[in-house]
Amino acid sequence: MDVREVVERTTDLVTTVALPVEDEHDGDVEAAGGEVLRVRLQGEARARGILSPHAPVDCGGLGLGMVDRSPVFEAAGRSLFGPLALNVHAPDEGNMHLLDHVATDTQRRRFLEPLVRGEVRSGFAMTEPAPGAGADPAALATRATKVDGGWLVNGRKWFITGADGAGFFIVMARTRGEPGEAGGATMFLASADSPGLEVLRHIGTMDRSMLGGHCEMSFTDVFVSDDDVLGGVDEGFRYAQVRLGPARMTHVMRWTGAVQRAHEVAVRHVAGREAFGARLADLGMMQQMIADNEIDLAATRALLMRACEELDAGGRASEATSVAKTFAAEALHRVADRCVQMCGGLGVSSDLPVARVAREIRPFRIYDGPSEVHRWSLARRAVRKYAQQPS
Amino acid sequence: MDVREVVERTTDLVTTVALPVEDEHDGDVEAAGGEVLRVRLQGEARARGILSPHAPVDCGGLGLGMVDRSPVFEAAGRSLFGPLALNVHAPDEGNMHLLDHVATDTQRRRFLEPLVRGEVRSGFAMTEPAPGAGADPAALATRATKVDGGWLVNGRKWFITGADGAGFFIVMARTRGEPGEAGGATMFLASADSPGLEVLRHIGTMDRSMLGGHCEMSFTDVFVSDDDVLGGVDEGFRYAQVRLGPARMTHVMRWTGAVQRAHEVAVRHVAGREAFGARLADLGMMQQMIADNEIDLAATRALLMRACEELDAGGRASEATSVAKTFAAEALHRVADRCVQMCGGLGVSSDLPVARVAREIRPFRIYDGPSEVHRWSLARRAVRKYAQQPS
Amino acid sequence: MDVREVVERTTDLVTTVALPVEDEHDGDVEAAGGEVLRVRLQGEARARGILSPHAPVDCGGLGLGMVDRSPVFEAAGRSLFGPLALNVHAPDEGNMHLLDHVATDTQRRRFLEPLVRGEVRSGFAMTEPAPGAGADPAALATRATKVDGGWLVNGRKWFITGADGAGFFIVMARTRGEPGEAGGATMFLASADSPGLEVLRHIGTMDRSMLGGHCEMSFTDVFVSDDDVLGGVDEGFRYAQVRLGPARMTHVMRWTGAVQRAHEVAVRHVAGREAFGARLADLGMMQQMIADNEIDLAATRALLMRACEELDAGGRASEATSVAKTFAAEALHRVADRCVQMCGGLGVSSDLPVARVAREIRPFRIYDGPSEVHRWSLARRAVRKYAQQPS
Amino acid sequence: MDVREVVERTTDLVTTVALPVEDEHDGDVEAAGGEVLRVRLQGEARARGILSPHAPVDCGGLGLGMVDRSPVFEAAGRSLFGPLALNVHAPDEGNMHLLDHVATDTQRRRFLEPLVRGEVRSGFAMTEPAPGAGADPAALATRATKVDGGWLVNGRKWFITGADGAGFFIVMARTRGEPGEAGGATMFLASADSPGLEVLRHIGTMDRSMLGGHCEMSFTDVFVSDDDVLGGVDEGFRYAQVRLGPARMTHVMRWTGAVQRAHEVAVRHVAGREAFGARLADLGMMQQMIADNEIDLAATRALLMRACEELDAGGRASEATSVAKTFAAEALHRVADRCVQMCGGLGVSSDLPVARVAREIRPFRIYDGPSEVHRWSLARRAVRKYAQQPS
Repeated sequence: MDVREVVERTTDLVTTVALPVEDEHDGDVEAAGGEVLRVRLQGEARARGILSPHAPVDCGGLGLGMVDRSPVFEAAGRSLFGPLALNVHAPDEGNMHLLDHVATDTQRRRFLEPLVRGEVRSGFAMTEPAPGAGADPAALATRATKVDGGWLVNGRKWFITGADGAGFFIVMARTRGEPGEAGGATMFLASADSPGLEVLRHIGTMDRSMLGGHCEMSFTDVFVSDDDVLGGVDEGFRYAQVRLGPARMTHVMRWTGAVQRAHEVAVRHVAGREAFGARLADLGMMQQMIADNEIDLAATRALLMRACEELDAGGRASEATSVAKTFAAEALHRVADRCVQMCGGLGVSSDLPVARVAREIRPFRIYDGPSEVHRWSLARRAVRKYAQQPS
Repeated sequence: MDVREVVERTTDLVTTVALPVEDEHDGDVEAAGGEVLRVRLQGEARARGILSPHAPVDCGGLGLGMVDRSPVFEAAGRSLFGPLALNVHAPDEGNMHLLDHVATDTQRRRFLEPLVRGEVRSGFAMTEPAPGAGADPAALATRATKVDGGWLVNGRKWFITGADGAGFFIVMARTRGEPGEAGGATMFLASADSPGLEVLRHIGTMDRSMLGGHCEMSFTDVFVSDDDVLGGVDEGFRYAQVRLGPARMTHVMRWTGAVQRAHEVAVRHVAGREAFGARLADLGMMQQMIADNEIDLAATRALLMRACEELDAGGRASEATSVAKTFAAEALHRVADRCVQMCGGLGVSSDLPVARVAREIRPFRIYDGPSEVHRWSLARRAVRKYAQQPS
Repeated sequence: MDVREVVERTTDLVTTVALPVEDEHDGDVEAAGGEVLRVRLQGEARARGILSPHAPVDCGGLGLGMVDRSPVFEAAGRSLFGPLALNVHAPDEGNMHLLDHVATDTQRRRFLEPLVRGEVRSGFAMTEPAPGAGADPAALATRATKVDGGWLVNGRKWFITGADGAGFFIVMARTRGEPGEAGGATMFLASADSPGLEVLRHIGTMDRSMLGGHCEMSFTDVFVSDDDVLGGVDEGFRYAQVRLGPARMTHVMRWTGAVQRAHEVAVRHVAGREAFGARLADLGMMQQMIADNEIDLAATRALLMRACEELDAGGRASEATSVAKTFAAEALHRVADRCVQMCGGLGVSSDLPVARVAREIRPFRIYDGPSEVHRWSLARRAVRKYAQQPS
Repeated sequence: MDVREVVERTTDLVTTVALPVEDEHDGDVEAAGGEVLRVRLQGEARARGILSPHAPVDCGGLGLGMVDRSPVFEAAGRSLFGPLALNVHAPDEGNMHLLDHVATDTQRRRFLEPLVRGEVRSGFAMTEPAPGAGADPAALATRATKVDGGWLVNGRKWFITGADGAGFFIVMARTRGEPGEAGGATMFLASADSPGLEVLRHIGTMDRSMLGGHCEMSFTDVFVSDDDVLGGVDEGFRYAQVRLGPARMTHVMRWTGAVQRAHEVAVRHVAGREAFGARLADLGMMQQMIADNEIDLAATRALLMRACEELDAGGRASEATSVAKTFAAEALHRVADRCVQMCGGLGVSSDLPVARVAREIRPFRIYDGPSEVHRWSLARRAVRKYAQQPS
C-alpha cells in the first residue's frame, strides 16, 4: 500500500473513531474503556488494513521504514488513542522493532507475531527505582543468576509502561559486573504469568493515555529458560541502543501529531473570538504564539526527517536522534503550552484538548532520556570532536 | 498577635495537618473531603487563633495589611489546602476585602461577618462565556434590569471559582450600555438559593485544589433587592479594580508558598540521588536549575513586596501589581516546571508534590488577567509615559 | 567540479588566506584593505577555480543549485571575508541570482557577466528612511516618472549594503500608486556614475565586515533609459520575491559557517581551561551551552536543507524560507552569544573571534525582514490554513 | 543635600553635558576626549556640588548609603559618561569604598582623598591570564615576597579596567600558599610609576566607554613598602568580599540608567513610526517587547533595593547581591537587545544609542563574576539550606 494511502486511512480512523472517544474521556484511557477500547480500535485498524504498519511484512505488518513511518505515526498521533489503534504505541512499537532485529525464529513466532497481530501487549522492563537504572542505565541493579536450563531474575523495576495487562516483558538484568559498570546486561523474555513476577502498582502520573499505566514491578526468583534469552548474554546494553534510536523518533512522530492538533484547535479558537474590538487571531501577541508554534513544529519535523534518513541508511544516528529527541520534547511542550495560553480559560479546561495534550507530553522531556542526559552526551561528543582541531 | 507568631502557627497547621492530607490525595480537594475537609481545617485554624488573619478586626479577623499578609499567606500556601484552612483562599479572601471596602453596615453583618467566621463560602460571578466578559471585562453581557424594589439579573457566567457550595455570590451585571462599552456595570449580592440562579456544571480544569470548582452558572430573572446592590449603581468596574490589585498579590503570596515547597522537595531529591558517579545536586545542569529557581523566587518576592508597600500606602498600584502578577505567574510556573525536571520520573508522578504544583499553578498565567492583557496594559502605559519626552 | 571539491578548495582558501586577515583586523573589512583585499581574495578564488560558484555556467560560474550551495557557502562563511573571496557575499550574490532570472540578454552581458567575473560590485537599492519602504515594502516612496526614452528616479534610500564603491545599482522605485499600496514598483539598473545618484554617508553599524558599508543614498532626477528597466514595468515587487527567498537562505548558509567557527573556538577554549579544580568543558553549565549550540546549529541546517530542496524543486518556498530565516537568525545569535559567555573575559575581546561574530550576526535578526514581520506573515498563513478546518 | 536634589543636579549634568558628547562619539571615551573629557565632566560635577556623592564626608564626598546611591547612580548611568562625571565609575568608585573601609589614616590621605577629589584615577589589579585568577579567585598566581621593609610583587594581570592613566593600583598578590588554595592573598597599594610595573596593552573589547581601557599588565619585582600594604597580610580575599557586594550593586545602578535610556529611546521610536497601516507602538509584538522591558527593569530595581537595604543594615548580603547582579546582568541585556530589535535598522546603527548600550552592557554578564559562577554559588547555598530539612 502506498504511504499516502496509509496516511489517509489512518486519518479517517483517527477522525471518525479515536478522537471522539478521546475527547469524551479527556484522554483517560482507562475511563475510555482500557483493553476493551484497544480491541475495538485495533479491530477498526485491522479492517482498514493498517494495523502494525511498521512491522515486518512476514509477520503481517506493512514494513514501513523510518521515513515512511513518520507521516503515518503523526497522523495516528493526532489522537492520543490513535497509536494504540494502529498498534504503534509505546512500548509495543519499540518492542516489535527490537524483536524483529534480535529474536530467534522461535521467539519471533512466540512473541513477535502475536504482538504484530494485536493479540497481546508487552512491556519493556528496564528502569528501576533509585539507586538502580534510571537516566544512567549503568546503574542497573536487577540481577539474573545462571541456574540449570536458564536464569533466575531478581530485582525491582518501575515506570514500566503498559505493564498492567501485558502478556510478556522484555526484562533487562545484570548478568555480569556491579551496578555502576557499563556492561554485562542481558535481555530476557518473561511471560507475565511467570511465578515471582508481580505488577505492584500503577504509579500516578500526569499522563493518563497509556494503556496499562506506568507500573512498579518486582521480580523474585523469576525463572527464564535459556531459550528465552533475547540475543546474546551480556549484550543487553547494545540491543537497548538498537531499540533506542528509532524508539525516540517514533515518540517524536506521535507527539508531533498530538501537538499539531492542539495547535490547530488553538488557532481556530483565536480565529473565532473577539476581544478589545479585534479578532484574537489578529492581535500581535497571539500571532507571535502562532508563528512560534509553526517554527517549532517545522524545526521538529526537519530534525526528525534528518534522523530518519540516517536510520534508514543503516546508521545508528545516535547524535541525530539525540538532537531531534531533545529539541522535539522541549519544542513540542512549548507549543502545547502556548496553545493553552492562546485558549485562555478554556485552555486549562477539558472542554478543549489543549490542556490534555500539554499534560500528556510534559513527561517526554524526561522519558527516553531526560534532556539533561542528552545534552551531556551531545556536549561530550562535541568536545571530543573540536577540542583537538586547529582553528 | 505578632506577624511572626501568626506565621509560626500557620506553619505548624500546614505541616501537621494540611500537607499530610494534600499529599495523600494528590491535592484533589474533593477526594480529600471537600466541605468536610474545610470545616476540619478551619476548625484547626480557629483553635490556633489564625482564622481570617487578613479580615477586619471588628469582624473577627486580625486586620493584617498587605505587607504583613505576605509571609502568612506564603506560609499557608505551602500546602494547596493551607489557604482554605486559614480562610484566605480565592475567591473568599478577595470577596472579604471587597466587602470590607464597599458593603453597607447591614451587608457587612449579613455577608461579610459569616464569611470571616468561616460559616459560609462565596463566589465572584464576573467572567462569562464568549462573547461575554473574559480577558476584556468591557464585554460584560449579563444584564440587570430595574424592577420594582430591585433588579432582575439575566445572563451566563463561567469559571466561577468555588460556586458549587457557595452561600452567596457577588454578581457583576450590566446596568447601562452595551457589551463592549467600558462602563455601566453594577455589583449585586445574590444568595445561592435565589430562584433562577443555577450552578450548571464543574468545568473540568487541570487544577483540582479549589473547593467548589470552577463552575458554569446561569442567571434567569434572578431577583436582587435594592438593599443587596453592592456599592453604587454603575460603579461595578471601579469596585472590581479595588478588589483586583490586592487579589492579584494574595494569589502571588499563596503560589509562592506552594512553589517554594516544590523547590525544597526538588532540591532534597537531587541532594539524595546519585547518577554517573556524582550526587545529582553537584551536577552543573542541576545547579543551574536550582539557582534559576532561587533567582525567580527572589525576584517574585521583591516585586511582591514593592507592590504591597504601595498598596499599604493607599495607592492603587495598578502598574506594580500588574508587573508583579505577570512576572510571578510566569516565574513560579518556570520554577515548578524545573522542579518536575529535577525529579525525573518521580517529577511527573504523584509520589512527589512537584507535578501537582506545576499543574495547579499553570492556570495562574491566565486567571486574574492573562499575561498578554497585563503586557498590553503595561505597554500602553509606557508609551504614554515616554512617547512625548525629549531624550 | 564535484561539490565536495569546491568545499575543499573553499576551506583551503578560507583557512590559509581569509581567516588570518580577518583575525588580524577583527573583521573590519576597511581596516583589512577594502577593495584591495577584495581583489586579492577573489584572485585567490579565481586561481582555485571557485569564484562565483553559484553563478550560471554560461557566465563563468559553476551553476550550483541551492542544496549544493549550502556546504560551499557555509565553508566560505567560516571567515567573515570568505564570501567576499568567493564572490558570494551580499548583495552581489543575490543580485546575480536576480539578474540571471530577469535580465535581458543585453543586460546579462552588461551587468551580470562583469559581476560574475568579479570586475565590479553592485548594490540593491530598496530600503528607505521613514516613512518609506522598510519592514513594510509597500511604503515605497522613491518614484520613477516616465520621460522620453526612459525614466527619472527621485528619492532617498538607506542601509544600501555595499553602495560605496558599487559599479551599478538595482533600484526599486514606484511607477504607479501611492506609498502604502502594494503594487506598482519597478526595478531599474542605474550605473553608479549616473548624474544625480549620490552615496551620502556610511551609516555606522555594529557590523563592520561588509565591503562598501551600509549607506544612505539620494536619487535626484537620475535618468534610466528604457533599456535599463529590469524586467517588466510595475513588476518590481514580484521580482523582489524571486530574489528574496534564495537570498535569505544564502545568508543563513554564510552565517552558519561563521557561527560554527565561533562554536569550535569556544569549545576549544573551555577544553583547554581549568577552574574550580575541573576542566571548564566538564562543568555542567558549560556542557549545557555546548549542547544547546549543537542543537541550534543542527536545527538551523535541517530547516535550511528543507527550504533549499523546495527551492531547487522550483517552488517559491516563502513559508519554508521564512521559517528557516527567522529560526536561523535567532538561533545563530544565541549560539554566538553563548560562545561569548563560554570564553569569559576573552569572549568580549578581539583576542578571539567570538565577540566579533556575535556583533556581525546580530543585525541578521533585522536585515532581510525583521523576525517580527516574518512571524506576522507566518501567523496569517496559519490562520488562513486552519481557521476554517473542522477539528 | 537631599538625595532628590542630587538626582536632579545629576540629571541636569547628564542631559546637558554628558549625553551630547556620548551621542556624538558613539560612547567611545577615547574618541570623546579621554582624560580631557574626564577633567571637564568632573569640573561640571564639582561646580554642581555632586562630585563623589558616595564618598565619605570627611574626604569631601556626600556620604550617601547604598539605598541613596541607587537613584543617583542610575541618573548618572543614563549617559555612559555620566558615572565618570560624578566620579562614581568603575573601578574608582569601588576602590574608594574599599579604601574607606580598610585604609590607614596615612593611606587615606595619600590615596583616598585625591581619588575622591578627582585628582587621580586608580586601578584594581586582581584578574590574571590563565591559569591565574579569573572566575575562580583562588587561582591567584601573582606573588609578593617579603623583603626588607616591604614586598616584591611579581606576576601578570589582565582586564585591569582603567589601568592606562591610573595613578595607583590596588594589587592583589599571593603571600602564602599555592595557586588553587583559597587563602593567603594580600592587597598592596602600588604607585603607577613604581619601577617594574608596566601597562602592556589595551585589550580590544566590545565596550568602549571605560576610560583607561581594560589592560594587560606585568609586575616585575615591583617594590611595595610595608606602609603600603592595604589592611592585614593574608587578608586580601576577605577585603575583596568587602568591595565586591557593593561594587556589584553600583554596577547594577549605573547599567539600569543606561538601559532605561535605551528603553525610552526605543519606545519613542516605535511611537513615532508607522508600518502596515498602524503605529509601530500599537502592534502587539512591539507591545510585548515594551512590556517585557518594563517588567525586567522593575524586577531589577526591586532586587537591587532589597540588596541595598541589606547592605545598609550592615549585612554582607552575598546571596542578595549575587541574585541581583545575575538577574540584572541578564535582564538588562535582554532589555537592550529588545531595544535594538524595536528600532529596526536604526537599532543596529550609531544614529541611536541602543546598539551602543547593548554593546557596552554585554560584558556585565561576565565581569564581576560570570553568571555561571554566581549560579554555582547560589545552588550550593540552596542545597546546604534545604538538603537536610524535613519536608
